Amino acid sequence: MSSNTTYAEWIAVDWGTTHLRAWAMSGDTVKAEAFSEDGMASLTREAFEPALLRLIEPWLGAAATPVVACGMIGARQGWFEAPYVAVPAKPGELQPVQAPTDDKRLNLMIVPGLKQADPADVMRGEETQIAGFLAENKDFDGVLCLPGTHAKWVRISAEEVVSFQTCMTGEMFQLLAEQSVLRHSIAAQGDDPDAFVEAVSDTISRPEKLSQRLFNLRGENVLNALDPATARARLSGYLIGAELASTKPYWLGQEVALAGSPALTAAYEAALRSQGVEARSFDAAPLTRTGLARLHAALTESA
Amino acid sequence: MSSNTTYAEWIAVDWGTTHLRAWAMSGDTVKAEAFSEDGMASLTREAFEPALLRLIEPWLGAAATPVVACGMIGARQGWFEAPYVAVPAKPGELQPVQAPTDDKRLNLMIVPGLKQADPADVMRGEETQIAGFLAENKDFDGVLCLPGTHAKWVRISAEEVVSFQTCMTGEMFQLLAEQSVLRHSIAAQGDDPDAFVEAVSDTISRPEKLSQRLFNLRGENVLNALDPATARARLSGYLIGAELASTKPYWLGQEVALAGSPALTAAYEAALRSQGVEARSFDAAPLTRTGLARLHAALTESA
Repeated sequence: MSSNTTYAEWIAVDWGTTHLRAWAMSGDTVKAEAFSEDGMASLTREAFEPALLRLIEPWLGAAATPVVACGMIGARQGWFEAPYVAVPAKPGELQPVQAPTDDKRLNLMIVPGLKQADPADVMRGEETQIAGFLAENKDFDGVLCLPGTHAKWVRISAEEVVSFQTCMTGEMFQLLAEQSVLRHSIAAQGDDPDAFVEAVSDTISRPEKLSQRLFNLRGENVLNALDPATARARLSGYLIGAELASTKPYWLGQEVALAGSPALTAAYEAALRSQGVEARSFDAAPLTRTGLARLHAALTESA
Repeated sequence: MSSNTTYAEWIAVDWGTTHLRAWAMSGDTVKAEAFSEDGMASLTREAFEPALLRLIEPWLGAAATPVVACGMIGARQGWFEAPYVAVPAKPGELQPVQAPTDDKRLNLMIVPGLKQADPADVMRGEETQIAGFLAENKDFDGVLCLPGTHAKWVRISAEEVVSFQTCMTGEMFQLLAEQSVLRHSIAAQGDDPDAFVEAVSDTISRPEKLSQRLFNLRGENVLNALDPATARARLSGYLIGAELASTKPYWLGQEVALAGSPALTAAYEAALRSQGVEARSFDAAPLTRTGLARLHAALTESA
C-alpha cells in the first residue's frame, strides 16, 4: 500500500516451527488473514523478516504498526529471545517483549513463554492459547489439556497457571506411525473407536507393558492381517494411554477442559471418559488470536 | 573366476534391512568375507540378485554353490518368502527353504523365521543367531536377550525357543535422539553411567511416568543446560528401563545371557545388575555365521 493510512490497527502473528499465521486486526476484529508454511525451522535468521513482510506488507502503512507475535519466534533460535516467565503466572498479564526490526514500519513485540523449575518444563505459544481460553472462561478452575505434537497439561486457578506438564505424544505417534517398522502395519488414516478405548485402558492399567505392545502391532499385522486402521487406533490408544497414565495426578478427580483440533479433543474425550472423567472440549483454532488480542489490549491500556 | 573349481564350498549370507554380509566358507572355516550396504530396504526386487552377485561372484565356480542366507531376504517383501516356523521350535534344526535364482551358479536356501501366536510376535534373522549361540552353549536353560533395533527376549530350554518378546527399544532411541525435538538436547555420543542406571531404575519403579520423563530432558536442557551426554544416557536409561519393566516376567529370577555389540550388552548388563540380575554377555558378531554354518552342516548331513 502506498497510502499513509495503515490498513491494520495492529497485526497478530502466530509463528511456530512449521507454520506462520497472521491477522490484520482492528481491536478484537479480524480484517484480513494470511498463512504460509514459512515455519521457524525452515528459515535462516536472515529470512525471518522477509518471510513476515511477504505476508503482512499489504497491511502496513508508513507509520509503525504494532505486531504482537507468539510461538517459536521468541525462542533462542528464533527472531529474538523473549525469556520464559516462571509459573505460577497469569497468561493474560504477560508482557510482550520489544524485538529489533530492520523495517521501521514494524513495531514487533513477542509474547514470552512459561517455564517451570521442577520438574523442568517449558512452553512457548501455548501460554497465548491459555490467555485466549481464559478470556472466555475467566472462572475456570481445573486442568486444561492442549493435545498435539507436545501435549500440555496445565493446572489453572484464579486465571493463573499453577503448574504444567508436557508429553511428546503427538510427535511419538508421528515418528512411530510414519518412520518406524510399524509404518508397514499402520493406515495413513481411518479409525476404530472400540480398539482405541481398549488400548487406552490396557495401557493405563498396565503401563509397564507399553514397550511390548508397540511391536505387537507388527506381529498382529504379519501373522493375523490386523486391519491397518485398527492398528492406527491401537497405536494412538497406547500412546494417549501412556500420557494419561503419566498425567493421572493432573486429571484424577479434577475439572478437565480440552483445547485442540476437534478430531484430537474427541479422542482425548473418549479416552478420559473410559476413566470416568467427563471433559469439555474447545476448538483451539481461534484461541491464539483471542489470546494475542487480549495481550494487545492490555498493552494499549497500560500505555 | 573363469576356472571350473569353486573357491567356496558354500557361502553364508546375512541379509538384513540395512546391510548385506557374505562369507566364503569351507566347512566351518571362513575363507573370505565381503560386506555392502545393499540392505533389502534400499533395493528393488530386480536388484536383489545383482547385489548379491556383486559381492560373491569371485567365489563362484561353474557348478552351483550352496548359499545359505538368513534375515529379511526371507520376508514377504524379500527375495523369496521362507514362512515362519511356530514356537516352540529348535533353531538348530530349522530347514532352509529353496529359493529361485536366475543365475544357475547359485543354489540359494533361506532360513525361515520364527513366529509366536499369542502374543503375536515374529523374528527373522535372530533365529540364526540363536542357533549360533546354542551351538556353543548347548545346555543353556534361561533367557537370551538380543538387544538392538528390535530387541528380542527369548526363553530357551533344551535347545528350544519356548517363547519370545520383541521391544522396539533401539528404533525408539534412534527416532527420539535424532528426529524428535529432543535432538537439540542430546549428544551424538558420550556416556554417563550413573545417570543411565538411575534412569533405568526410575522407569522400572514408575513405568507410568515415561511419557513425561522424555520431554523433561528438553526442559532440563533449556532451563538448566543439562549436559547433552547425560541427556543421551538418560534417554537410553528411560527406554531400556521401559523394556525391562515390560520384560520383567522374562528376566526376574532367571539365568540371563546377552548377545549383541559389546557396548550395548555392557549397558544391558549394568541395567540388569541394578535390578539384582547378573547377566553374561556374548559378542553377537560371529553368531549369525556360526548359526548359518550349523544349519548348512545339518543340511549336508540330512542330504
